[in-house]
Amino acid sequence: MTDRVTASVIGASGFTGGELLRLLAGHPNVELVEATSRSYDKKTVGSVHPNLRGLDLRFTTPEDLESVDVLFTATPHGVSMGQIDDFFEIADTVVDLSADFRLETEAQYEEWYDGHDAPEYLEKAEYALPEINRENLPGAELIASGGCNATATILGLYPLFEDGILDGSEQLVVDVKVGSSEGGAGGGEASSHPERSGIVRPYAPTGHRHEAEIEQFLGTSVAFTCHAVDMTRGASATIHAFPNEPVSKRDLWGAYRGVYGDEPFVRTVAGGSGVYRYPEPKALTATNMAEVGFELDPSNKRVVVFSAIDNMMKGSAGQAVHAANIALGFEETAGLEFAGLHPVGAP
Amino acid sequence: MTDRVTASVIGASGFTGGELLRLLAGHPNVELVEATSRSYDKKTVGSVHPNLRGLDLRFTTPEDLESVDVLFTATPHGVSMGQIDDFFEIADTVVDLSADFRLETEAQYEEWYDGHDAPEYLEKAEYALPEINRENLPGAELIASGGCNATATILGLYPLFEDGILDGSEQLVVDVKVGSSEGGAGGGEASSHPERSGIVRPYAPTGHRHEAEIEQFLGTSVAFTCHAVDMTRGASATIHAFPNEPVSKRDLWGAYRGVYGDEPFVRTVAGGSGVYRYPEPKALTATNMAEVGFELDPSNKRVVVFSAIDNMMKGSAGQAVHAANIALGFEETAGLEFAGLHPVGAP
Amino acid sequence: MTDRVTASVIGASGFTGGELLRLLAGHPNVELVEATSRSYDKKTVGSVHPNLRGLDLRFTTPEDLESVDVLFTATPHGVSMGQIDDFFEIADTVVDLSADFRLETEAQYEEWYDGHDAPEYLEKAEYALPEINRENLPGAELIASGGCNATATILGLYPLFEDGILDGSEQLVVDVKVGSSEGGAGGGEASSHPERSGIVRPYAPTGHRHEAEIEQFLGTSVAFTCHAVDMTRGASATIHAFPNEPVSKRDLWGAYRGVYGDEPFVRTVAGGSGVYRYPEPKALTATNMAEVGFELDPSNKRVVVFSAIDNMMKGSAGQAVHAANIALGFEETAGLEFAGLHPVGAP
Amino acid sequence: MTDRVTASVIGASGFTGGELLRLLAGHPNVELVEATSRSYDKKTVGSVHPNLRGLDLRFTTPEDLESVDVLFTATPHGVSMGQIDDFFEIADTVVDLSADFRLETEAQYEEWYDGHDAPEYLEKAEYALPEINRENLPGAELIASGGCNATATILGLYPLFEDGILDGSEQLVVDVKVGSSEGGAGGGEASSHPERSGIVRPYAPTGHRHEAEIEQFLGTSVAFTCHAVDMTRGASATIHAFPNEPVSKRDLWGAYRGVYGDEPFVRTVAGGSGVYRYPEPKALTATNMAEVGFELDPSNKRVVVFSAIDNMMKGSAGQAVHAANIALGFEETAGLEFAGLHPVGAP
Repeated sequence: MTDRVTASVIGASGFTGGELLRLLAGHPNVELVEATSRSYDKKTVGSVHPNLRGLDLRFTTPEDLESVDVLFTATPHGVSMGQIDDFFEIADTVVDLSADFRLETEAQYEEWYDGHDAPEYLEKAEYALPEINRENLPGAELIASGGCNATATILGLYPLFEDGILDGSEQLVVDVKVGSSEGGAGGGEASSHPERSGIVRPYAPTGHRHEAEIEQFLGTSVAFTCHAVDMTRGASATIHAFPNEPVSKRDLWGAYRGVYGDEPFVRTVAGGSGVYRYPEPKALTATNMAEVGFELDPSNKRVVVFSAIDNMMKGSAGQAVHAANIALGFEETAGLEFAGLHPVGAP
Repeated sequence: MTDRVTASVIGASGFTGGELLRLLAGHPNVELVEATSRSYDKKTVGSVHPNLRGLDLRFTTPEDLESVDVLFTATPHGVSMGQIDDFFEIADTVVDLSADFRLETEAQYEEWYDGHDAPEYLEKAEYALPEINRENLPGAELIASGGCNATATILGLYPLFEDGILDGSEQLVVDVKVGSSEGGAGGGEASSHPERSGIVRPYAPTGHRHEAEIEQFLGTSVAFTCHAVDMTRGASATIHAFPNEPVSKRDLWGAYRGVYGDEPFVRTVAGGSGVYRYPEPKALTATNMAEVGFELDPSNKRVVVFSAIDNMMKGSAGQAVHAANIALGFEETAGLEFAGLHPVGAP
Repeated sequence: MTDRVTASVIGASGFTGGELLRLLAGHPNVELVEATSRSYDKKTVGSVHPNLRGLDLRFTTPEDLESVDVLFTATPHGVSMGQIDDFFEIADTVVDLSADFRLETEAQYEEWYDGHDAPEYLEKAEYALPEINRENLPGAELIASGGCNATATILGLYPLFEDGILDGSEQLVVDVKVGSSEGGAGGGEASSHPERSGIVRPYAPTGHRHEAEIEQFLGTSVAFTCHAVDMTRGASATIHAFPNEPVSKRDLWGAYRGVYGDEPFVRTVAGGSGVYRYPEPKALTATNMAEVGFELDPSNKRVVVFSAIDNMMKGSAGQAVHAANIALGFEETAGLEFAGLHPVGAP
Repeated sequence: MTDRVTASVIGASGFTGGELLRLLAGHPNVELVEATSRSYDKKTVGSVHPNLRGLDLRFTTPEDLESVDVLFTATPHGVSMGQIDDFFEIADTVVDLSADFRLETEAQYEEWYDGHDAPEYLEKAEYALPEINRENLPGAELIASGGCNATATILGLYPLFEDGILDGSEQLVVDVKVGSSEGGAGGGEASSHPERSGIVRPYAPTGHRHEAEIEQFLGTSVAFTCHAVDMTRGASATIHAFPNEPVSKRDLWGAYRGVYGDEPFVRTVAGGSGVYRYPEPKALTATNMAEVGFELDPSNKRVVVFSAIDNMMKGSAGQAVHAANIALGFEETAGLEFAGLHPVGAP
């Protein structure tokens, strides 16, 4: 372990890549070395990410990468699995933000994606989410940052399974609302402002690939539906669960506090006063914090769980840095301390 | 029956009242006579509703109302039940847009509201939604316009019950997203722009009063949760249903087409090409149209139903005028023909 | 003149084309015959414009157009000038919504655009804006619908010139704010939702082509700057004028009322009570109405003029139909009566 | 001078107060002691500002304030002038974010506000904006943080005056667009989401009080008009200037670079490639950075200047902390390093 590492970002012109640049450039233990983008080679990173105009860094191409300690890869799904050997030529630690190493078996990739090119790495990979995998992260060489919707869902449900309130035999409905940054940079008609603003649009109404991650970590399938709504950042999961046994608010508080009481990046918010009484993405904009909360519906024997994150942070780049901090022995919260904003427009 | 009636609106400075003014002023069979508002007495209706600046009409107080054929009442819940005798002094037909006459029994009002002041009218009242109550509307004297969220939910589920795909024994989760106009005019901290924009905010996470209407008309309870999102108009219900028997897309198309094939104000939208593949409030802005649609999730034995409306139109004022058209023997679509907009910002 | 004409729309899959389809399909004197789109040939118009799902019409290609009375052309700038002879083969009246016939001379097209392919038509063309060109529209065969920003600016300034409050020697600053529909359908990175939402973005900060139209009709140049803001429809011009002589509010009311007092589609809004005290695009969504207003700034010897329109309506499709109504001898307001909405989210 | 000071915030439940709490809680040289709010006495600051839920701090009342080194006061205009003696009982340094000490003379307060209760303090007060007043800030005891719109305007124009491109004899039009946080917390009908979203609304069309500050520091009056647009944070000033002598882009780059070349919180952005070519509030969300830029309009002999800030940061709380850093001898950028976000929804 060292106090300071060098790091580069592959796929740095995308939204997630830009967020990584921002976090790494401000990280006390990291020296940001290179940022790759074929399309923007030689341009300043600030020409793509205006918040980084003050950063003296130009995009390079992946072929020119020099060796670093840690490589963050923010390429589209399917790219990393084909280049993973090359990545390890460059760095000892690879943190991949795509879906390529999240699932445990080749069979899952056959079922949910288009198979896998480097299945021998699957066993080696560690899922980034520290709240459920912290013990395996120190020293991890290949870290797979989780999917944003899966992250929100898993964080919302995990305490109920840990505490035995749910056991996997119950009906679970997960209704997710996400912002436009999940679609990535670049555009397209459906994500153009005139068509995308003000919507409540079902997308991936069934069969969303994040179901695979959720099932892998919770041990049960969920009925998952995703909607695009008018925000840029943010993912919010509302989970409708029907426990087999009656459950009280005290039970729920016990479950959430028990599991997350010492977590630096999870808060339980359930009721209380004021405008923001349950988890909301807006209250978490730009932070690595997840908020989880719940409400009881006795007449329907239902527990409603709310889970909210900034999909660019806890849902991708922030989670990746958090996991890397643990892997490399840094303070868990290093580079991730931003408190968030109030008020803020759309996340 | 006559070709032309006189009509006035009580509570005309609110959002629903303003929508009624707009519809009635443009209705070929209606002469709009008076619009009441204590707060804005003697001011032009255009000073509150800027779209009606061209209308030569000033607010009056309810005490000064002259007799008309039809009275539309858009007062807060609990007001109409106390004044219903007075309303019938003024008009032969009363169309109430509050919740005061939607439920059938005093017991329901004891359970879901604060009781009822005029329970003798409950039996007389007809629920406005023509798709489920058309046969009782001709000649109706007291019409109770449905709740917006209940309307979206009922329209989405009704064909599944009618067709026997659901029988009431199944788990039903209804996850609703609504715009800020549901909160009514006037403001308050939670609905101020800085706090309300860009949100996905759970409100009425459990125990929403519209559950009562839904249960009354579908004969089964639903697990209902509502979220405020960043639009002004619009309500969108995503319904997660788990039929006891396997169901095919053909079955679903059959159910929806069978029930809504001849309805002037319901369209079935499920899949297809382009940007708008499922029901969305945005595509229905300013129209009285509901869109319903569905998707199959075989791996979870689930049917996902989407239902979208403009809450100010099909969800309140438009539904009220539609029902009044039937009650009074006019063309069903009279005054409600606006096709909607593309593109439009937020609904 | 006849009571009813046939009409087709070329370029009907774009935003302006879709708006034309909506207006013509609901027009009492028009039978909508064909809608062309090469990209969407044979698809329903509702697959592109979801508000028109109820319309039984499929896109065709321009080559297949049958003869109609009126042809509305909503093609990109530069297309109509190359096909204008063909257009007149199909129809006796052509209403063009591009910039191709707005300017009077070939020299202007050399200066502001890339020249002109059919300059012989320029003299024949009539500018659509009825408020300044009504007398030349009856019987017009080629109508050039004005630019949206030019329309807002001209309507705001015209009374001051007509009344002699301005004479063309004064400094005129025009600061315009527009919605994303001005960029047209299709998208691109700058108009993608994540990049386009919540912005105040200078675009065309100087040298905007609409300056040419403004100068042509007002006889003076204006210092014009345009900003993109977060709405979809709508154009708002704030005009800062410095009259040579002192002017009173009474003078201004006189000028605006004198010129627009009998106009069906212009309202003067200046001060008053309530939330909407000056012209705002939001209050005009979906209408063909322009609102103009003003405020005095005695300490700076300035008149501030506000002018707002729905750029899709008064700024393009609505203006085109209005002008066609006059050209063909119909009621001026036929098909354009929609009152607008309150509340509405973003225009 | 010391390495660490204690600080409290008066008026901490408002938007500006909350932003101060966030900045001070994260400031390396500050120990945040108390936060006052009469309305929320004893409640956690996180119950009002959800981003501060992790902060272990409850509101107190002003009467209970203990002595601190620095007092930040975020009360409505007119309050601080009446309590300034009390403030100095509590702290040696007072940083006031209201308008109460921005102007230099009692006469100005008579002209632009309702007079002044403590004119003896006016001479003592230092305007916070370091870019124009840095030399007077070290050791300052009373600091007056500038108005957000004045800040944007002054920063945009200052280099043109410093460089002699403007001398005060020219016509200056300032057209400002601001977000809803400028209206403060609490709401009201005009700022309710249904009425406030999607707007381009003239407010303070003439006679805006910030003209006084601008005139005081630039030595010339400006023709100032403000519009509310759909964002929460952010102020953007477009300044239309007509220099007496021809000016080139090189001249302008020289002026801006000369004045701001070493400023830590001002960037010049003018043209270039990509989506963000000129200053935009969105690119500056949550930062203390101002961006200024320009474009030439030779045909109108005009220079268009764009200036953008986050009104909650550079426009108030960030500026206040920046000035306090200088006054107290800290690093200028301490506590203000956040880089901003890409993408972000509405600022």
